[in-house]
Amino acid sequence: MSADTRTATSGAARSSQGARTATRLADGRELVYFDDALREGESPRPPHDLHDPRPLPDRFAPVDSAPFQGPRMRRDPLTGDWVPMATHRMNRTLLPPDDACPLCPRRPGADYTDGEVPDTAYDVVVFENRFPSLLSVPGEPTGPGSVVDATPAEVPGGLWLEAPAAGRCEVVCFSSDHDASLASLGPRRVRTIVDAWADRTTELGALPTTREVFVFENHGREIGVTLTHPHGQVYAYPYLTPRTERLLGQAAAHHEATGRSLLRDVLDAELADGRRVVLETEHWVAYVPFAARWPVEVHLAPRRDVLDLPGLTDDERDDFAVTYLRVLTALNRFFVAPDGGPVALPYIAGWSQAPARDHRRELGRLRLEVFSVLRGPGKLKYLAGSESGAGAWISDTTPERIAARLTEVLA
Amino acid sequence: MSADTRTATSGAARSSQGARTATRLADGRELVYFDDALREGESPRPPHDLHDPRPLPDRFAPVDSAPFQGPRMRRDPLTGDWVPMATHRMNRTLLPPDDACPLCPRRPGADYTDGEVPDTAYDVVVFENRFPSLLSVPGEPTGPGSVVDATPAEVPGGLWLEAPAAGRCEVVCFSSDHDASLASLGPRRVRTIVDAWADRTTELGALPTTREVFVFENHGREIGVTLTHPHGQVYAYPYLTPRTERLLGQAAAHHEATGRSLLRDVLDAELADGRRVVLETEHWVAYVPFAARWPVEVHLAPRRDVLDLPGLTDDERDDFAVTYLRVLTALNRFFVAPDGGPVALPYIAGWSQAPARDHRRELGRLRLEVFSVLRGPGKLKYLAGSESGAGAWISDTTPERIAARLTEVLA
Repeated sequence: MSADTRTATSGAARSSQGARTATRLADGRELVYFDDALREGESPRPPHDLHDPRPLPDRFAPVDSAPFQGPRMRRDPLTGDWVPMATHRMNRTLLPPDDACPLCPRRPGADYTDGEVPDTAYDVVVFENRFPSLLSVPGEPTGPGSVVDATPAEVPGGLWLEAPAAGRCEVVCFSSDHDASLASLGPRRVRTIVDAWADRTTELGALPTTREVFVFENHGREIGVTLTHPHGQVYAYPYLTPRTERLLGQAAAHHEATGRSLLRDVLDAELADGRRVVLETEHWVAYVPFAARWPVEVHLAPRRDVLDLPGLTDDERDDFAVTYLRVLTALNRFFVAPDGGPVALPYIAGWSQAPARDHRRELGRLRLEVFSVLRGPGKLKYLAGSESGAGAWISDTTPERIAARLTEVLA
Repeated sequence: MSADTRTATSGAARSSQGARTATRLADGRELVYFDDALREGESPRPPHDLHDPRPLPDRFAPVDSAPFQGPRMRRDPLTGDWVPMATHRMNRTLLPPDDACPLCPRRPGADYTDGEVPDTAYDVVVFENRFPSLLSVPGEPTGPGSVVDATPAEVPGGLWLEAPAAGRCEVVCFSSDHDASLASLGPRRVRTIVDAWADRTTELGALPTTREVFVFENHGREIGVTLTHPHGQVYAYPYLTPRTERLLGQAAAHHEATGRSLLRDVLDAELADGRRVVLETEHWVAYVPFAARWPVEVHLAPRRDVLDLPGLTDDERDDFAVTYLRVLTALNRFFVAPDGGPVALPYIAGWSQAPARDHRRELGRLRLEVFSVLRGPGKLKYLAGSESGAGAWISDTTPERIAARLTEVLA
């Protein structure tokens, strides 16, 4: 089944303009190059190097004569949440030396690469994480109808449910330039990244174990990012994440009570109110949500009802690329250092989209949430007792103040 | 209504053995001293100094000729969660200078105090936070029957609900010794602290706006603690916290399906399995939960079904004091620094207890959750995309490994 065929289920046309080239790494993991679309007069690129010369063992090979064991997950009986857990065999024993970035392209002339990318250059490349928290292992019983769907009462001894943490963790490299950042890339590249995100949403959503595809970027050392090479991630979870579960629960209650879409109504209400809208373009609206939880938070939603990334049209993708870069530029102007200089904002950006498989899928609506734990230059919001212990967020600011500052610094 | 009368609703006798002395600070906030019980032969203490000489204005007085405005909270339509928000007037403009710890006792001979405690010494003292996130303001409409109970469909324009962030935030000082920590105090003091926690649960639970009382301690600079004086906090929320809401939902489903108590069944199952039980005493069980989310996590539950802190008997309180100190000592031995030295573990400790007001109160059961974001010496678990964006925790270890290490280092 091709990506284009599946995209049709999202009800929108899609025509990625760059090239897509797929291969497999030495241990069997999938790797896909996404090239920027060529501008008029540009020459076609040479074909990508597809051969990974490393002597990696098959990743499902036995370890110390014991059968390969994938990651497992357990259901917390107190909350109903599934928690994937690293197992001993899955430990990251093979981290590269500090001077070898695994996301950089192969050095020209080197006959062996420490990194994950066989080619000496790329625009955008996606590959499966070598040390994944979620992994579908051949032969392991998973997928719909498995224990993930069961209520405890349906399973003997059902207080404690355990299952393979099946799924997929992928890395999305935004540039072969180690020192770039997404905010520094031009709209043509961001457009390619959107195409890659949409492709992975479609591909990973089609895996039989996938319930939800989450596309996100962790950016900045302050939130624990250790690989500074510009990249994001894609997780295909075998369960609905707690945030999506709650959102769909709210959306279902709203639909039941009003017959309308909660996420459509929220966007319309933000537009009608206007106090927290920071940017409107032909296809997108950027706003600080009514009940923002973080010191800096902004959501980007398409004007049209779109379920997920594959559902975006070419025009919407092009417009997003320009709009998102304006928002990221503003975020890097949000705080001013004591010496008057800029403060690169650490942030988490995550796409909330309709789940791949759920009877409430049609209640979903695409939306990018961007937020930061920075509450001032050098000052972090810590998630302490109330947030981490009781799950109760408390904000030190107001959405209107965040919106006013964003409006001030938007170019 | 006295504390003892109310405690009877928890179905357990209580006889705090130390003295309790209540007063008001200059701006009207409540302050309560709790003295350790005297050992045989010890002389009674002199009466506590109750007079706060600071010229603080009434805390509900108008600011710049405008009526006092308390903190507000908004309901996130995407999750249903309430989010209290600091307002401009509530900003912490009056932080003390660095050399004046506001939790230290008054310096003997000083006729004016920078700190919050009028006396020159104390065992345990509790007072209302001067800059609270939750505050009941006289005359503001709150309490049961208010918008907090409403579903959006019941309120005109109900997509966005807003209400006073009514409630109470209190500080619990564990010792007048600025350099002590809870783990360094003896069992007699910890017993007094338990009495203080129980007293505050009763008193704050009786406030008409309170739905849930959360008793917790944030410990260590790594989680953002700025005041190093040993102290914990008590929050009285005007709503159920998201964690308690989910727990009661799970408990109600379990009760519906089995007729039994979820939290009792979880404890029994942990005891029967035994692999994660790290300590058993006459009245308490310490175990790493089946689906632990944090790099270090341990729960302490009473053997007897107890709804909340006020429901603990004297014997259970005495036993807890000794047991908790053993657990905290073990936690400080959990990691070993590269030089072989100890690693003081930053931690969050929070009491999960039955809510003060909820029709499912009887499904609650007292339990202390202690966990740490430290996953190794100098290494933090960051809550990035999966956790902060999707609410999906992923563990880098297993509960059995945590339990094995705790068992190893328990004295």
